[in-house]
This record gives sequence, C-alpha cells and structure tokens, in this order.
Amino acid sequence: MKILGIDPGYNIIGYGVIEAQGSKVKVLDYGVITTPKSMSISSRLQTIYRATCELMETFTPDEVAFEELFFNTNNTTAIPVAEARGVLIVACKQYLDRLFEYTPLQIKQALTGNGRAEKKQVQFMVKNILGLSATPKPDDAADALAVALCHSQTNNSIKDNSM
Amino acid sequence: MKILGIDPGYNIIGYGVIEAQGSKVKVLDYGVITTPKSMSISSRLQTIYRATCELMETFTPDEVAFEELFFNTNNTTAIPVAEARGVLIVACKQYLDRLFEYTPLQIKQALTGNGRAEKKQVQFMVKNILGLSATPKPDDAADALAVALCHSQTNNSIKDNSM
Repeated sequence: MKILGIDPGYNIIGYGVIEAQGSKVKVLDYGVITTPKSMSISSRLQTIYRATCELMETFTPDEVAFEELFFNTNNTTAIPVAEARGVLIVACKQYLDRLFEYTPLQIKQALTGNGRAEKKQVQFMVKNILGLSATPKPDDAADALAVALCHSQTNNSIKDNSM
Repeated sequence: MKILGIDPGYNIIGYGVIEAQGSKVKVLDYGVITTPKSMSISSRLQTIYRATCELMETFTPDEVAFEELFFNTNNTTAIPVAEARGVLIVACKQYLDRLFEYTPLQIKQALTGNGRAEKKQVQFMVKNILGLSATPKPDDAADALAVALCHSQTNNSIKDNSM
C-alpha cells in the first residue's frame, strides 16, 4: 500500500511517500511544496492546491495521512497554515476518500514509543525505519515521512483516525 | 459589476450577490452553504468546495470579497473555520483572480461610518442600502451581503484589499 504523508504549512509543506507491506516499509519519494512570499494569498493557496493535485496524480497513493494542527495562542501564523491545510485536504479528497489525521503526540508515540519525544529522536527513527543513510531534509519532509510511517503502523491495528 | 460576498464559516457559510453600478446597488441573491455535522471533516470541506464552484458558475461574479478571520484565543473553532476559508478562497480562485478581503472593522466602517458599530446596525444598513423589506436571514447571509457592499463602496475609491 502506498501512503502519502503530509506535514501542513503555508510557506513550506512537507510530503513523503512510502510503500508499506505488512511491517516492511520503504521510501518512494519525499520533498516540499513551497510558496513564495511575493505571491498573493490566493495565488499561494492555488499553488498549494495544484501541487497537491500533481502529487496525487504522480504517486497515486492508496491513503493519505495528515498531521493535525493545534491552536497555539502564541502562533500568529495559525490562520494561514489552517487555510492551507484546508486546501491540502480538499485537493487530496478530489482523488481519494481514504484520508487520515494524527496528532504530533500520536506520531511521536508511534515512531519512538514516547509521545513527548524530541524532534531529533523522531527524525532518527524516520531514518532508521526507512533504512536511509541520512535524515531526510528539510525537516518538513522528514515530518511528512513520520506521519506516513505513523499511519502505516496504526494501519496494522485500529483505524480511528479517518477524516 | 457583479460582486459575490462571502462570510466564511465551517458549519454555515453566508453568501450574497449584488449588482453595483456606480453608487447604485441591488441584490441578486443571498443564502448559505451548510455542512452537516454528521459528515467527515474532508467531506464537509469538499461540500464547501463544490458549493462554492456552483456559486461561481451560477452567478459568474466579476469580483469576490471575503471577510477576514481573526485569531481569537477563546475561539476553539478557529482552525476548522480557517481550513474552510482556505477552501472557499481556492475554489473562487479557480474562476477568478479578482479576490479581496476586508476586516470586520472595515466592513462596519464602510456601512455605518463606525468601525465599532453593533451587528444590528450593520444589518439595518444592509436592508436599507439594498432597499429590502426585511433584514436578510440568516445572519450569515446578511454578513455576506455586508462584505459585498463594503467592497462595492471601497471599489469606488482605493483598492488595497486584493488577496
């Protein structure tokens, strides 16, 4: 089964595609979608929409896993990031009904066994589980692979994260 | 010129279409898009996307005006509303580049001359400017007409609200 993991953002969105067969997983691709700050808000959202459609057409994933957003009172970028996340979801939904979401705690727990693990530890596990020679860069791509891996593991047990 | 005004939301989204010629304005239609709570998140966002495309095709507006969202620390619904707003913007963008946004303060100021006017006063002005026999219901539709009217007035002077 092919899983596309998405780390939502507005300036930069991470994606990672893995192939999971039982407990075996391998990476197919990863990278980022970026939107230039010089563009208008609506053009940036449209860029995100189109790039996501292109990902869906290129990789034809069976399932997509998103990281959940949390409301942080110190984070003034929450609104544009949430707007972009809505666009990411609706673009994937044009191709597929099998969409899932996971909290950062669920992702850390699934990869490291500790819901409060540090970012570096999660990245270390992404590299190890996928048998890579180095941690995927940038961080957004590694985070996207992490949510894809989290889904592939959850996939084997209970599915209560559909959206 | 035909203007579509949008009051963003997740459960309920208001829309209002007006025809503006110089200082003359008349209402063409107004109403709401609703998404049932029983639907999945992604299905609700898709419903919003499709309904917005339908509005764009039905009314073929020349310009679209959105109310801006503000980050409110007491508002736990900010994330889904912002996700829905991203979807609304990207759907309109598929048809049109002329998208604008206004803060609640700008809308109140444009309609009543007072940026801190009460909701009832804004609704009273919507009814009066459009020559309606009653205030449009529900409130979300009246709010959408208010942002369309705000845009038609701003339209006559300076345009610094493009998005």
